[in-house]
Amino acid sequence: MEQNPETREGRPVASTHAETFEMVTQGDLNIYGTMFGGRLLSLIDKCAGLAAFRHARTGVVTVAIDSVEFHRPIRQGAIVTVKAAVNRSFNSSMEVGVTVLMQNPWESVFEPVKVCKAYVTFVALDPSGKKVELPPVVPETPDEKRRFDEALIRREHRIALNSRLRP
Amino acid sequence: MEQNPETREGRPVASTHAETFEMVTQGDLNIYGTMFGGRLLSLIDKCAGLAAFRHARTGVVTVAIDSVEFHRPIRQGAIVTVKAAVNRSFNSSMEVGVTVLMQNPWESVFEPVKVCKAYVTFVALDPSGKKVELPPVVPETPDEKRRFDEALIRREHRIALNSRLRP
Amino acid sequence: MEQNPETREGRPVASTHAETFEMVTQGDLNIYGTMFGGRLLSLIDKCAGLAAFRHARTGVVTVAIDSVEFHRPIRQGAIVTVKAAVNRSFNSSMEVGVTVLMQNPWESVFEPVKVCKAYVTFVALDPSGKKVELPPVVPETPDEKRRFDEALIRREHRIALNSRLRP
Amino acid sequence: MEQNPETREGRPVASTHAETFEMVTQGDLNIYGTMFGGRLLSLIDKCAGLAAFRHARTGVVTVAIDSVEFHRPIRQGAIVTVKAAVNRSFNSSMEVGVTVLMQNPWESVFEPVKVCKAYVTFVALDPSGKKVELPPVVPETPDEKRRFDEALIRREHRIALNSRLRP
Amino acid sequence: MEQNPETREGRPVASTHAETFEMVTQGDLNIYGTMFGGRLLSLIDKCAGLAAFRHARTGVVTVAIDSVEFHRPIRQGAIVTVKAAVNRSFNSSMEVGVTVLMQNPWESVFEPVKVCKAYVTFVALDPSGKKVELPPVVPETPDEKRRFDEALIRREHRIALNSRLRP
Amino acid sequence: MEQNPETREGRPVASTHAETFEMVTQGDLNIYGTMFGGRLLSLIDKCAGLAAFRHARTGVVTVAIDSVEFHRPIRQGAIVTVKAAVNRSFNSSMEVGVTVLMQNPWESVFEPVKVCKAYVTFVALDPSGKKVELPPVVPETPDEKRRFDEALIRREHRIALNSRLRP
Repeated sequence: MEQNPETREGRPVASTHAETFEMVTQGDLNIYGTMFGGRLLSLIDKCAGLAAFRHARTGVVTVAIDSVEFHRPIRQGAIVTVKAAVNRSFNSSMEVGVTVLMQNPWESVFEPVKVCKAYVTFVALDPSGKKVELPPVVPETPDEKRRFDEALIRREHRIALNSRLRP
Repeated sequence: MEQNPETREGRPVASTHAETFEMVTQGDLNIYGTMFGGRLLSLIDKCAGLAAFRHARTGVVTVAIDSVEFHRPIRQGAIVTVKAAVNRSFNSSMEVGVTVLMQNPWESVFEPVKVCKAYVTFVALDPSGKKVELPPVVPETPDEKRRFDEALIRREHRIALNSRLRP
Repeated sequence: MEQNPETREGRPVASTHAETFEMVTQGDLNIYGTMFGGRLLSLIDKCAGLAAFRHARTGVVTVAIDSVEFHRPIRQGAIVTVKAAVNRSFNSSMEVGVTVLMQNPWESVFEPVKVCKAYVTFVALDPSGKKVELPPVVPETPDEKRRFDEALIRREHRIALNSRLRP
Repeated sequence: MEQNPETREGRPVASTHAETFEMVTQGDLNIYGTMFGGRLLSLIDKCAGLAAFRHARTGVVTVAIDSVEFHRPIRQGAIVTVKAAVNRSFNSSMEVGVTVLMQNPWESVFEPVKVCKAYVTFVALDPSGKKVELPPVVPETPDEKRRFDEALIRREHRIALNSRLRP
Repeated sequence: MEQNPETREGRPVASTHAETFEMVTQGDLNIYGTMFGGRLLSLIDKCAGLAAFRHARTGVVTVAIDSVEFHRPIRQGAIVTVKAAVNRSFNSSMEVGVTVLMQNPWESVFEPVKVCKAYVTFVALDPSGKKVELPPVVPETPDEKRRFDEALIRREHRIALNSRLRP
Repeated sequence: MEQNPETREGRPVASTHAETFEMVTQGDLNIYGTMFGGRLLSLIDKCAGLAAFRHARTGVVTVAIDSVEFHRPIRQGAIVTVKAAVNRSFNSSMEVGVTVLMQNPWESVFEPVKVCKAYVTFVALDPSGKKVELPPVVPETPDEKRRFDEALIRREHRIALNSRLRP
């Protein structure tokens, strides 16, 4: 893998930020009246993919979703905002952190509350499908630095878990 | 939480099995010509949800996706088969294991190959939204027993990781 | 049409089996609160197409749906399972039998009930669009043998009906 | 079943006519580059349902699709026009005839050609789900009269076939 | 731009007519229980596009929607009929007038009422993407002549407005 | 119409801002390989609706789209970002300005370019469907002030055009 000298210094986390929203309608609801987990996962993957692309500036594919936690159900009429940014890159892979916020005026929830967070791992590929080395991610705020550190802890734990399950 | 005496003995893993398939068409493809990660996640959540429901026989909601790994890209014309079964239950939550297989005659892949696996955690709720205690899952085959044991290891690792990230 | 010597002996019906399911949500309902006929027909055609493909191992296109009967309405919350298998082949065409089963715990229907059956005819085509001769289908169980015989009766009746309508 | 005296005389076929169209785009295509059979069946059921509704002026549900024949494949860029009208009513059921026409300027097919025809049977239901007696259909043109007569032949043949298959 | 001598005389408005319908179901409703504006706009653009295509007989792309007015909300169970025809052409662009009618038996609205009208402007392009001169539109009925005249007034006003906003 | 004293002072334009994005895939493309006008209109209406809602904090319905201009075609692989904010309110109606930006790395368009702008008018309704008086919009930046002034000019021109067409 060759490295592009221009991006050797890395890109700031803020430059990878992606954001989208959906209004939750009847078509998004499962039979319990709450938003389909699968529907939300699609939004998460879509938004994470744009953040990954903004960092990589080349093709990216999802290789893993390490952890998604749904904190509370999302009901009809909610406005769901999804925010994503690259936490850290590791050679040709990168972890994207995703936060999902909900407002629901029909339940008098005007201030956004966190309903879900997720970590999605992507690899960067060139047009022929070969892995591409990624520039580093430069965390600037304390929150970005915490996420940068945690990305490494998650990675180490995943490797440890995999070696325990498949020794 | 009250326990139903009828199911105190548990239900065999085989009785929770769920299966579905999709033919991958142009509408499922991202801009790199491979199936959207988010599209596959929707299928995984849908099939896992049926397995969870078959075990719980009451409402279930997705609370976490602990680990999804995409082993290889899925291209147009592929037939994607998703298989799910409950690995183990813990009080009111249960881990569902999902395997995704692919055939693609247009690439001369006639025998199904594994392209993805995932672990999805559901909780069982009664109609008022309160958690319901689940019957145990009874693994019968060696493979089911291995998955039963691994579900506990994954749970322990997740708890350990969370306490390290948020002490 | 050339015949492939490998498949001159035919393929067993079981090898053509295809299965899928859907949970019926609000987006699938017509204005009477029951599943769209058209939505179910799409599922039937999709599942029948996979069965036809597994027999033909080449491209297949729907040429006729001879008979679909909807025995009872399907409501929100139902789990609809579609099963298909090739009943018989005739030169380059084949009849696929489809059965649709429903469970609906919200209506206390836990054991699957038959809600629809259908017969779909496909022809097999090579990549240039020319018809391809199909291997025979080998029925093994009494049920498969009955379906094999009935496929011929339906075909004869259809030919008789057509000659009466367009003499 | 009570009969509404206002409609004892019947409604002309023309008053039940329904029409719609779709431009066939990439999302409608199967892996062979032709329109999904299931996609076209949805359109047929939708348009037939409106014709049935215009005759019944009450709720209608699809009970059978007796015969659908796909005469030629429909490719990307085609404009598919679906036309439906009630052929004949029998107590609380009615047969709707559907014709599908295609234009495809990208293949220099400017004049509409017939690509599919179908016969769909509906029953009329009141809001409580009980069958409702339908007014007669009054065919006026020679073509409508031929279709009126053929609907009876198809019905007789179907009854004969069913009694042969399930004596 | 070259002009095709065959169409120098123009095409009658009636030859550009396009029509489609939808039954409004739960999946089409926003959180207020009325049809999504965006869903209706898609239908309008689709139907206007067919009218434009029938006039141009070459590729057309939407360049502007000058005015859409929603007169009354459309609710579940409504049958929405969209009718479009070319009002007038100007060199390579043309204005298409669209009328949306609604019936809703569930609200005892049996006779179609106008719920929306829109004016959509298209340009005609050849396969290389260059603008193509359009034949004139020939209005024949008094209503078509009024629309033909009004199309010019709308165009003049739009040009006046644009020059006032961006002098 | 009663006025809420809390919002008599008005809300700043910035507080109404809404943003979303889509990656354009094959399913969004018309037969010319460019994004459906109707697909983009749906996105515009959705994003404008959120801006209107953020200003009104009550139900809003689209009443008019005064002007949409598509400056250039959007092709596969593009990332389309839609931004909306309320320009001005008039009693119970408000004009929302929408800007659509496109990046398309596959065409080497990395910096966002403007591909479309639109003005959408909404009215605010209370739960019983009666019009609600809106707080004023407070423009703060020079750009917001220009848009605030232009909204009045567009409104005056529309009224003048309507009185000329329907005197």
